[in-house]
Amino acid sequence: MADEVVVVAVLSARLGREDELADSLAELAAATHQEPGCRRYAVHRDVDDPKRFVLIEQWETRAALDEHFTQPHMAVAAERAGELVDGPLLSVFCSSLPAGDPSKGAL
Amino acid sequence: MADEVVVVAVLSARLGREDELADSLAELAAATHQEPGCRRYAVHRDVDDPKRFVLIEQWETRAALDEHFTQPHMAVAAERAGELVDGPLLSVFCSSLPAGDPSKGAL
Repeated sequence: MADEVVVVAVLSARLGREDELADSLAELAAATHQEPGCRRYAVHRDVDDPKRFVLIEQWETRAALDEHFTQPHMAVAAERAGELVDGPLLSVFCSSLPAGDPSKGAL
Repeated sequence: MADEVVVVAVLSARLGREDELADSLAELAAATHQEPGCRRYAVHRDVDDPKRFVLIEQWETRAALDEHFTQPHMAVAAERAGELVDGPLLSVFCSSLPAGDPSKGAL
């Protein structure tokens, strides 16, 4: 667990491109799940602002995450993001601070 | 799963108050794990910016999440946040968009 990296990314679709971005993220998730070291790559949509999406990722190691950014499906996603994504991407790489009930206090 | 709400919150500590905020979030997590409908309440710390923390929460229903905000430990946390937290809180309520491998595509 000590080497594990959790990533949270928040991004917004351009107006009218929301569903295309949702589809693109779903494809990206399916491809990413095949990568070594990917424990989780989960797509979410803001219930109050459907343009906004949140990715929650869990990687065995930082090396596995670094490798992820070199994958062909990431290049495709980055190119599509240029058309579909509006404004800045918030992306936070973090480590778990376990607390309380172990079954609820970490991913 | 359809009723489930996932919350991602990102907040930063005032300079020098990082460890107090980490402790406060750990206490909040432990108390929150006892609430009905709390499936997960996991504290994370940014590896590149140790002032920044990320909460990943998973609630059975929106009603359970609404109830969470009325709890005494939330009132205590909100009061402490006034001293310990710097700048705005980003908080996103979202729903899962399952994709790919079911064991990796959702919390």
